[in-house]
Amino acid sequence: MARVECGYAHPDEETVSLEAIFHALSDPYRLRIVRALAASAVPMNCGDLSFGRPKSSMSHHFRILRASGVLHTASQGVEHMNSLRREMLDRRFPGLMAAVLGEIGHSATTEASARPLTPA
Amino acid sequence: MARVECGYAHPDEETVSLEAIFHALSDPYRLRIVRALAASAVPMNCGDLSFGRPKSSMSHHFRILRASGVLHTASQGVEHMNSLRREMLDRRFPGLMAAVLGEIGHSATTEASARPLTPA
Repeated sequence: MARVECGYAHPDEETVSLEAIFHALSDPYRLRIVRALAASAVPMNCGDLSFGRPKSSMSHHFRILRASGVLHTASQGVEHMNSLRREMLDRRFPGLMAAVLGEIGHSATTEASARPLTPA
Repeated sequence: MARVECGYAHPDEETVSLEAIFHALSDPYRLRIVRALAASAVPMNCGDLSFGRPKSSMSHHFRILRASGVLHTASQGVEHMNSLRREMLDRRFPGLMAAVLGEIGHSATTEASARPLTPA
């Protein structure tokens, strides 16, 4: 059962699947969103995470990240604030986000994120 | 530059990307292949990894796993033997495969693999 909060549906912990998370992380822009949120001490609004891409394209990426369980969106007035569901992800798939974010050993992921991105 | 070996192309370590690996792992059958290979002490042929699915469907899954860098295929006579490129993956993305295979902490991935699979 998904929880609907301020118009946004977020999957419950027990329904979050590894396959859906991998699909969410298989796109370079979605991976950039995840890395930016991981590096931020506070939730970020969608505008701060647009990377110069059209709003419709980024809305699609946010929807997929949210549906997979990776990201949480909350409405604050007219803003939509995003944060990683890091605690839940660490509980459900230990070590996964640490590996994704290059927190373990050397960070080959930094090289990957420095690559030129092709349009989504 | 990809290495071609016995007719199979395998990406070089430096061209392997996190995005391609995530795409490869975003399908339940491909995840089953990866888990079966991780649990096996020796390379496995495609027939042992078909899970009752049509050959054409599984060939597609093997191709995606190979192209992403996750899997290595070698021809031995008429057989095509598959193994994980675990050492390379561990070097390039430390901790990733351990997290994927549920080797860190409790294994939520075991639950996921026990779920009924929908046809690919």
